[in-house]
Amino acid sequence: MGDPKQPEFRKTPAVLLPSKSELTQISDDLRLKCSEEEIDGFREYFKGTMKVYQRIQEIPEPQLPVKYPRTPGHKETKDNSWYWRCDIKGADTGKLTGKTIGVKDNVAVAGVPMMNGNRQLEGYTPEFDATIITRMLDAGGRIVGKTTCEDMCLSGTSWTSSSGPIPNPYCPTRATGGSSSGSASLVARGEIDMAIGADQGGSIRIPCSWCGIVGFKPTFGLIPYTGAVPIEMTVDHLGPMTRTVADCALLLEVLAGYDDGTDPRQPPNIVVPPYSTLLTKGVEGKRVGILTEGFDGVDYDVSKCVREAAYRLRESGVVVEEVSIPLHTDGLGLWIPISYEGAYNMMFKGNGNGENWKGHYCTSMQEALARGFNLRPHDISIVCKMQSVLSEYMVRNYQNKFYAKAQNINRLLTKAYDQALQTYDILVMPTLPCTANELPTTDRPVLDTLRLTLGMMKNTAPFDATGHPALTVNAGSCEGLPVGIMFVGRSFDDLMVLQMAHAFEQIRDQPS
Amino acid sequence: MGDPKQPEFRKTPAVLLPSKSELTQISDDLRLKCSEEEIDGFREYFKGTMKVYQRIQEIPEPQLPVKYPRTPGHKETKDNSWYWRCDIKGADTGKLTGKTIGVKDNVAVAGVPMMNGNRQLEGYTPEFDATIITRMLDAGGRIVGKTTCEDMCLSGTSWTSSSGPIPNPYCPTRATGGSSSGSASLVARGEIDMAIGADQGGSIRIPCSWCGIVGFKPTFGLIPYTGAVPIEMTVDHLGPMTRTVADCALLLEVLAGYDDGTDPRQPPNIVVPPYSTLLTKGVEGKRVGILTEGFDGVDYDVSKCVREAAYRLRESGVVVEEVSIPLHTDGLGLWIPISYEGAYNMMFKGNGNGENWKGHYCTSMQEALARGFNLRPHDISIVCKMQSVLSEYMVRNYQNKFYAKAQNINRLLTKAYDQALQTYDILVMPTLPCTANELPTTDRPVLDTLRLTLGMMKNTAPFDATGHPALTVNAGSCEGLPVGIMFVGRSFDDLMVLQMAHAFEQIRDQPS
Repeated sequence: MGDPKQPEFRKTPAVLLPSKSELTQISDDLRLKCSEEEIDGFREYFKGTMKVYQRIQEIPEPQLPVKYPRTPGHKETKDNSWYWRCDIKGADTGKLTGKTIGVKDNVAVAGVPMMNGNRQLEGYTPEFDATIITRMLDAGGRIVGKTTCEDMCLSGTSWTSSSGPIPNPYCPTRATGGSSSGSASLVARGEIDMAIGADQGGSIRIPCSWCGIVGFKPTFGLIPYTGAVPIEMTVDHLGPMTRTVADCALLLEVLAGYDDGTDPRQPPNIVVPPYSTLLTKGVEGKRVGILTEGFDGVDYDVSKCVREAAYRLRESGVVVEEVSIPLHTDGLGLWIPISYEGAYNMMFKGNGNGENWKGHYCTSMQEALARGFNLRPHDISIVCKMQSVLSEYMVRNYQNKFYAKAQNINRLLTKAYDQALQTYDILVMPTLPCTANELPTTDRPVLDTLRLTLGMMKNTAPFDATGHPALTVNAGSCEGLPVGIMFVGRSFDDLMVLQMAHAFEQIRDQPS
Repeated sequence: MGDPKQPEFRKTPAVLLPSKSELTQISDDLRLKCSEEEIDGFREYFKGTMKVYQRIQEIPEPQLPVKYPRTPGHKETKDNSWYWRCDIKGADTGKLTGKTIGVKDNVAVAGVPMMNGNRQLEGYTPEFDATIITRMLDAGGRIVGKTTCEDMCLSGTSWTSSSGPIPNPYCPTRATGGSSSGSASLVARGEIDMAIGADQGGSIRIPCSWCGIVGFKPTFGLIPYTGAVPIEMTVDHLGPMTRTVADCALLLEVLAGYDDGTDPRQPPNIVVPPYSTLLTKGVEGKRVGILTEGFDGVDYDVSKCVREAAYRLRESGVVVEEVSIPLHTDGLGLWIPISYEGAYNMMFKGNGNGENWKGHYCTSMQEALARGFNLRPHDISIVCKMQSVLSEYMVRNYQNKFYAKAQNINRLLTKAYDQALQTYDILVMPTLPCTANELPTTDRPVLDTLRLTLGMMKNTAPFDATGHPALTVNAGSCEGLPVGIMFVGRSFDDLMVLQMAHAFEQIRDQPS
């Protein structure tokens, strides 16, 4: 159709033909021993392949939508729980009308900078809204900022964000907990009504427990992860952080549901009941199992507080018994290779996207992560370094064989919980083995610092691996620091978890 | 519980603590700039981590079952279509009673050696049956051997297996086609009743088309892939290869269905209709769209044969019209980064398992692949080398950005087919652009050889990427060589594909 006389202007193609020396180098590096004839033949063949790639560059790709107008906002400098302030108003009315919401800074909000707690990513502004952002705005929510999170979300406490530590609202020398540290602090202090967190090993439940609020890691796949920076695809969860179970149910109702094949973590045909309206349905006659192994290694005061809290459910007519699941003791151990080695493959080496899955790939986020990693790979927290070094050691020496085996055993662990959940509607245990631990100071040895940072996940991490819904709600306090009780339910029976937690909340707030 | 006086014997742990120098080397290689204090601290911390890994080594993992007795069988030396002969009888009665079945040698059969066309894997004998093996044996099938396949299944023709070329049954200088080359040859020659193939870019349909038999790549996820060597998890398919559509339906009926979460390619709640009994339900009034773009670049004789065949469906009361889907032209191009870069990540660097998915990891197969790749990485076909060199080039220079973009555009391509399939029950096109091409001789240049080996997938590969069911059945012949017609249906409406192919088969075998 073009005018044959129209000159074609020179442009640099997006994909360049490899040089012969580069192909030879790759062949040598991979020990492929390609002959010169093969290298030449490949290079000829790649002329066609590069045209294919060039064409892919030119086809427009589908984008995640951005529906509501906004300004870029501004960096917050006075309160380290905020990374960035903005003010995005959604639909005029909806389930979240009047609610102010903070979003963990590993979830993309179009036009608003994000850094995922990490200096490498700084300067990146996504051009798309994560699916849950659109859902909250469609429901009339008001997004007032991005909350600070730990460096690459890899920490259970709250000192690894590149912007510095986030002290516990109840005690300034102790940790808020992480990695959704800013979200928990802001909700606990009443700065916002609700927050979004992400939970791969406990990152919603840890700071919520230590800050005395409600945090829910729902069933794996219930909420689309589309548009958030992942850690490992089999443990990635997003979820609500609120002051009450009622608010938690309301927010989950908005967040949950299938997202048209964009997120491979989701099965199709998810049913989302109206959690908030069904919340107050009684729990009389339901059965709760207090998980014996969930109390191993737990501080005495925390154990006592949680066990007493659990037994108070009898006041609502709930049957409360002890139950043993021996494999729970191995849950954290199974989670370690899965989350460490898997994260190294996906987040670090795969630039947050990796391969071998169908769905929506956030390409600008992938580019931003790749830029950071290539520019300054060392500009990450000590925890990120430790995980990278360990994972590379396991790749080089053990070819990820323990990752594979851990995934297989994880199916046994999942079945062990499922079996107990045939007898019990809910399993109960302390969310964490201790109250908020100390923020490490520079004179603490590295070993000690790592233990403080990662040593509290024995009850939270297993349910990231198995995917069961797990909610923490405040059970009381020890020496002025909040203690969380965790309710775990059947996969996709998130409603029962909310109902039981709500029933508990009512009892808790009455004199015993 | 143990006697405290019992001596504990020295044993070598499965996982060893890294040395300080190895950790320093990794830190340097990854440009992490860990301080000496950090390295020392990590090493102390890893003492606990190594105990976690040691414990994972000790927990028994769940295995895929082996239900029927067998002897190891023997290597076949007279007919290169066989890699290994065995004779495994399943249940006394069932849908496959009396049927002899050959299994492509990328699917594990317990106790029988497998090599996936590749010398690196030689010597490996899986200790488990792939899920489909158990299903066929439970249905009374008799497995009589492993069929030769192309090296790592990466070839559309049939000369890259390490055991040598497999000539076309209709012409000894031409290719059977691949990568399920042995399966097609044996079924076409009547040596076996049925065969299993795998199809990632056309590897079932190419040899079936060139050998004049029926080959079905069913809907992505319909048949569990558990226990087969993968190429790329978003394009992996297993499927039946038979002489008649009726046998194809019968075998699919046995193979299809959900496998309890072992294969992440499968959605839960798959419905498997009784394909074989519903096969003869009429197709009167159904609508077939002849895909215009499916004829681009197709040899004149092949085009003519397929178009005439398609219009003969009118004899069964089918409405036959032309339909255009412009994006089909880009289908092969989108498939290239997905299958090449994805395979490099999964099959080569991930030792056939990779990470970041839930399901059953075949750990002994992973070990066998890792051994081979580490021992002799160069002992692979020229096609495998080309794909590795290209993929490593794309990782180093483009960080897999085109893979990500291709996956996104693939969702548009899927929707484009889905939209056409709202109007039409079936899309029709030539399976391949030409009849069986020549087996390359050593004096052919590398470029020419690669083109002969990979240049026929423009209509087959797009449906591996989108997952739509696609079946080839013989439409006639050109100069004595078979021509296949391909029927493509809606995802999970594999029944309609079989019904239309069956209706066509009846018409084809009557004089026009």
